[in-house]
Amino acid sequence: MAYFHSYAHVGIHEEMIKDRVRTETYRAAIMQHQSSITGKVVVDVGCGTGILSIFCAQAGAKRVYAVDASEIAVQANEVVKANNLSDTVIVLHGRVEDVQIDEEVDVIISEWMGYMLLYESMLGSVITARDRWLKPGGLILPSNATLYMAPITHSDRYSESIDFWRNVYGIDMSAMLPLAKQCAFEEPSVETITGENVLTWPHVVKHLDCYTISIHELESVTTRYKFKSMMRAPLHGFAFWFDVEFSGPAVSPTNNHTPSSHVDDNPLDGSQRKKRANPNEALVLSTAPEDPPTHWQQTLIYFYDPIEVEQDQLIEGSVTLSQSKENARFMNIHLEYASGGRSFVKELVMR
Amino acid sequence: MAYFHSYAHVGIHEEMIKDRVRTETYRAAIMQHQSSITGKVVVDVGCGTGILSIFCAQAGAKRVYAVDASEIAVQANEVVKANNLSDTVIVLHGRVEDVQIDEEVDVIISEWMGYMLLYESMLGSVITARDRWLKPGGLILPSNATLYMAPITHSDRYSESIDFWRNVYGIDMSAMLPLAKQCAFEEPSVETITGENVLTWPHVVKHLDCYTISIHELESVTTRYKFKSMMRAPLHGFAFWFDVEFSGPAVSPTNNHTPSSHVDDNPLDGSQRKKRANPNEALVLSTAPEDPPTHWQQTLIYFYDPIEVEQDQLIEGSVTLSQSKENARFMNIHLEYASGGRSFVKELVMR
Repeated sequence: MAYFHSYAHVGIHEEMIKDRVRTETYRAAIMQHQSSITGKVVVDVGCGTGILSIFCAQAGAKRVYAVDASEIAVQANEVVKANNLSDTVIVLHGRVEDVQIDEEVDVIISEWMGYMLLYESMLGSVITARDRWLKPGGLILPSNATLYMAPITHSDRYSESIDFWRNVYGIDMSAMLPLAKQCAFEEPSVETITGENVLTWPHVVKHLDCYTISIHELESVTTRYKFKSMMRAPLHGFAFWFDVEFSGPAVSPTNNHTPSSHVDDNPLDGSQRKKRANPNEALVLSTAPEDPPTHWQQTLIYFYDPIEVEQDQLIEGSVTLSQSKENARFMNIHLEYASGGRSFVKELVMR
Repeated sequence: MAYFHSYAHVGIHEEMIKDRVRTETYRAAIMQHQSSITGKVVVDVGCGTGILSIFCAQAGAKRVYAVDASEIAVQANEVVKANNLSDTVIVLHGRVEDVQIDEEVDVIISEWMGYMLLYESMLGSVITARDRWLKPGGLILPSNATLYMAPITHSDRYSESIDFWRNVYGIDMSAMLPLAKQCAFEEPSVETITGENVLTWPHVVKHLDCYTISIHELESVTTRYKFKSMMRAPLHGFAFWFDVEFSGPAVSPTNNHTPSSHVDDNPLDGSQRKKRANPNEALVLSTAPEDPPTHWQQTLIYFYDPIEVEQDQLIEGSVTLSQSKENARFMNIHLEYASGGRSFVKELVMR
């Protein structure tokens, strides 16, 4: 049975294209880097309906290889033909590991980000494309990505799903609470919160540089976090979100096109510093709670019960995100928490 | 991965309970029939969290058998215990075919209706319960149900899902149209429309009397329809919805409690006539587009392309709803259409 907005296949692409924050930021990034694209060879990893490939063709690319392993590549090819772009955009239906491109490429563009950045992400394919085809000094869009986390308070959500059972048309259904909490909170939840829900500045879980990251580095990501709550509030759990930055050779301060221009980006703090130092230079696609909502929303990990925290109370622990051994598509999340004399471990599977 | 409001198990019950049209109409119907419930034995078919059973206990039932085959029965039992109703409400975890009740019952209550009334409905279990346990002259709530259909116009929906592809950020993606139409319209779609979308008075696809209907009668339902469009408009397809009526011994005009009081309801038109004649007597739970929305919404069958119809144009054909042989849970829909010299057949599977 179909529900409006949830139907298979095309619906996914419709949702992504209609996410104007996503699609317009990509288009703006392509135009900002037009001097690196005009007359150059581009590969679009996971091209979907081909919209980013066509943006690149419109920006003057000499040739765009649009690669997608799914059936949507057939549609992308039809769209390209209908727009008389077959001479420029070459659709390759297959995995990046398997398709053949007989030249080096100047630019890789890809919209590879999954929920919580890494869940079902296509970053592995971007790395493969980079290592197979990208010229030294070539451009990767986006160039780097940062996954954040922060403690959140969200009483409305908790009331609506959990406290609701305490009084159901006058009947005390509290007996439902344990199961209701389990069903609501045993898995990460994709939903939209606002800046109001966030209790502190975020912590960087992982910053990754698309020019240098290896597939091995993605298998498991661990971070230790330490927050100081900015207010007294019931702590309901943690939110995760990400941003990606479209920097690279064309936006370095000296507009330096040398092959090594990205190498001096320290992946752990360089890009972030550069963004702050030159706020107008690198376009950023943000999925933060304080920014306009996107189809990625935010990913929430709820505790089964809220924890009252005081202003300035320290909240610390660690998070590990790792590929499930049960199913490579799934992501295991191991969360350790300690604050105010309480500590616990929460294990989740994002499936 | 969980999405807010779509998580498994408990979320389904939360959604149904929070449907105030549904739950409050059932409660009102129980109170309206209180004289038939006080001191009597009730069976609640598919009790879920047990809320209707508790309403019946509150209305003075001597004993309520709350039957559910799913794991939720364990929760219902906890809720009953926590409300000190274990002496009155007996939760039976099993199928109506399998559980044992060692007495005749005076009342059957059930919220058995599925999307489009019959999709994944529990009416078969109500029939089984009736034939196993209901006393002659006993009360069934709801007592009868009517499935309606009507031609609809819905340009906004068509534009949003289909015409959208004609201009995607300035790119002509019409090549996506065939697949987009297939993905959007090959299955029935559950969504909320309004009275504005409906082109004519509805046609009764099936009226069924819970006192007399047989399981055999549900295996296949066929109707011939004939509409005269009340306006010139693009016809996008058909909407289906239903209502159920809470009549029976206690609401017959003479307040007649004799065993045969329901027998003179002609299932094909009697109840409808009675409802119109005595509008204040029988409570009706309606899921019609002109009534407040419910979690059932309406079920839409779209054509792949809209058909322009003139005012007073005849639209005729037939619909057959039948259980799928591939999977008993699925419903096959066979729709024949003829109007203005055009005719076609559309086959759908609701899965």
